[in-house]
Amino acid sequence: MDVISVIRTKRDRGRLTDAQIDWVVDAYTRGDVADEQMSALAMAIFLNGMDRAEIARWTAAMINSGERMDFSVLARPAADKHSTGGVGDKITLPLAPLVAACGAAVPQLSGRGLGHTGGTLDKLEAIPGWRANITNDEMMRTLEDVGAVVCAPGSGLAPADKKLYALRDVTATVECIPLIASSIMSKKIAEGTGSLVLDVKVGSGAFMKEIGPARELARTMVGLGADHGLPTVALVTDMNTPLGLTAGNALEVRESVEVLAGGGPDDVVELTLALAREMLDAAGLKDADPAKALADGSAMDAWRRMIAAQGGDPDVALPTARETHVVTAGESGVLTRLDAMGVGLAAWRLGAGRSRKEDPVQAAAGVELHAKPGDAVFAGQVLMTLHTDTPERFSYALEALEGAYDIAPAGTGFTARPIVLERIG
Amino acid sequence: MDVISVIRTKRDRGRLTDAQIDWVVDAYTRGDVADEQMSALAMAIFLNGMDRAEIARWTAAMINSGERMDFSVLARPAADKHSTGGVGDKITLPLAPLVAACGAAVPQLSGRGLGHTGGTLDKLEAIPGWRANITNDEMMRTLEDVGAVVCAPGSGLAPADKKLYALRDVTATVECIPLIASSIMSKKIAEGTGSLVLDVKVGSGAFMKEIGPARELARTMVGLGADHGLPTVALVTDMNTPLGLTAGNALEVRESVEVLAGGGPDDVVELTLALAREMLDAAGLKDADPAKALADGSAMDAWRRMIAAQGGDPDVALPTARETHVVTAGESGVLTRLDAMGVGLAAWRLGAGRSRKEDPVQAAAGVELHAKPGDAVFAGQVLMTLHTDTPERFSYALEALEGAYDIAPAGTGFTARPIVLERIG
Repeated sequence: MDVISVIRTKRDRGRLTDAQIDWVVDAYTRGDVADEQMSALAMAIFLNGMDRAEIARWTAAMINSGERMDFSVLARPAADKHSTGGVGDKITLPLAPLVAACGAAVPQLSGRGLGHTGGTLDKLEAIPGWRANITNDEMMRTLEDVGAVVCAPGSGLAPADKKLYALRDVTATVECIPLIASSIMSKKIAEGTGSLVLDVKVGSGAFMKEIGPARELARTMVGLGADHGLPTVALVTDMNTPLGLTAGNALEVRESVEVLAGGGPDDVVELTLALAREMLDAAGLKDADPAKALADGSAMDAWRRMIAAQGGDPDVALPTARETHVVTAGESGVLTRLDAMGVGLAAWRLGAGRSRKEDPVQAAAGVELHAKPGDAVFAGQVLMTLHTDTPERFSYALEALEGAYDIAPAGTGFTARPIVLERIG
Repeated sequence: MDVISVIRTKRDRGRLTDAQIDWVVDAYTRGDVADEQMSALAMAIFLNGMDRAEIARWTAAMINSGERMDFSVLARPAADKHSTGGVGDKITLPLAPLVAACGAAVPQLSGRGLGHTGGTLDKLEAIPGWRANITNDEMMRTLEDVGAVVCAPGSGLAPADKKLYALRDVTATVECIPLIASSIMSKKIAEGTGSLVLDVKVGSGAFMKEIGPARELARTMVGLGADHGLPTVALVTDMNTPLGLTAGNALEVRESVEVLAGGGPDDVVELTLALAREMLDAAGLKDADPAKALADGSAMDAWRRMIAAQGGDPDVALPTARETHVVTAGESGVLTRLDAMGVGLAAWRLGAGRSRKEDPVQAAAGVELHAKPGDAVFAGQVLMTLHTDTPERFSYALEALEGAYDIAPAGTGFTARPIVLERIG
């Protein structure tokens, strides 16, 4: 087997054989295939695609590059959720303890943010004392006791994917459905969850801007789950507008706690419950009632125990930003558009996200929204509050918000877009 | 300017701007763009192409990555030839001194062989004492005195191409017309010749197997020459059958000397004269008579002086192989096919070529042909003699010759294929 012939096969629009895929993924992980060779192959895959069987084998090869975990030893059924990422997407924070409160074990192996969408670990790290790195033993114990863990994945899971993802990031080969799908699913399958619910975002603030590719990605991942014996369902959900009223780490924690307390923005509650019902169904807990668990405090209780188990203090005050700046409406009317990408970029520029992996993030930075599309606004009303510890960033953040919202004359018709657009499973 | 946006432009079938091309070629040469990024871009170019203006700019950027030479100070007009490579293609050896004998200066910056086609420098190095590396001063002096130099290009010419070529070699991005054309032409334009004749080979033993892509490559290079003010003509020539009766370093030198002595195989003489006439025309020496220069010994005289100027002794015996093995005809009839690729691979396996850049070559190894397509043969007649210093290679070489020739019953019609298929200029 030699790498030139593997690259040439895909370059010339051929199918990669199982042996070629197994060999090239293994050789790349071991360092026998160089980065420049894998990036040429990744670009050939980007442009010429892979069929379902190739993607399944590629995923299997990435799983086989490392260890696999197994949650079947737990008394609770394991249920996992993965989001492709969006602006204000704090859903994991209320969702994991909510589903745990209903009887499932929720092992959320999560990442840090890069670019305009935040990372779940960055958000939880806004809680003083909370730490993302725990041992596998601590993870299993918390899953058994509390039912929910959000943590960084161990380096032993799908190391091929880790290496390939870093390469794709610098070679413009990220936005490729076969490679995205195999990346996500290899980690989720190696992690050993019993079932999986995918939240595939579509819209200006998401990776996928159009419904067609989002649907294709969702179908590809659902198919990969089936091929590997992992029951998988996908919800395709709207990401043209930020989720909820906050984008930024501590701001999103605060909003998540509001949801767990039975309040919070309607869209966050709706999506949290929709995903919870899917996870509970998939876990065989069909009688569970997540709305009740939000209302009766049991989800909040699970949250407090989950945070405490990883060193966080659920009662201590969250950090607040040193400086704020308000954006006001220039005219009266109805807010008809609030662009997720604009808000995400603004939050990122205020310090909530990072440009390079090694950058720190500001816990308190971000954007707080005071109106959402469909709301009536009046001239001079505060539409957003920008938070940062580094006020020299305000003007740069404000640039990102130019043209990011529309106010139409009062009385203009407005049709709210549903959050959940499609269910694929 | 950032590399991700450059790669993305070409990945998404866009045109690269002049600024993008200038920046990425320069940044890659300086090491600010990594190999894995350039290989992703090369694959995107391979699959999505470049238009004429992009190729011209890419070529200019590669030229600008290094120094330029200038032969306009010479009293003789400079004329250069480049072949895309074939089996038994020793044409440079008789051609350079022949054209020099007719009044031109022929600066042949040549390479070593890799794979089944030999390199001109490897061939001349079969001559005891001859050395490929000379200084620019020695080169200019020999061009003035003798009119012909064959040598290794200095490392200062188009360093971007040198680096990119090595990368393409390991990433399956070699066979791409925009990249081949810009690679060849950047070196030739940087070299500073006054005119250029291209020998674009097509057939089983060539890089280009089909006339269509060969013609496209020829047209692209002729266009690039025009865009950079270098008068360029291309001959598209047949490479289904080896050129002449030898493939291998010392064997080809011997045959070249036969041509310079007024003999040699018809096809070698025909192609040498055709290319010489093109070069002399392009150099403005329209009254020169290369056939006369072969017949009257002036070309041979230039050869002897050219070899001597680089330390070689034109009178010393060429090395001969320690062992030979003959391949005989299994039946009587007419030889209707003799495959260039089979013969090239056999010569390579006998030791005439190398697998890796750092490998040595055997001066005396190769294949000597005793019949060419169209010749009558009888059962038991020697068709080929294989030469090597390492007889354990015979069986491996013989495998390459299996199915590489056909003998049809005597009287079967045979139409000789012309050597020069098309002229583009």
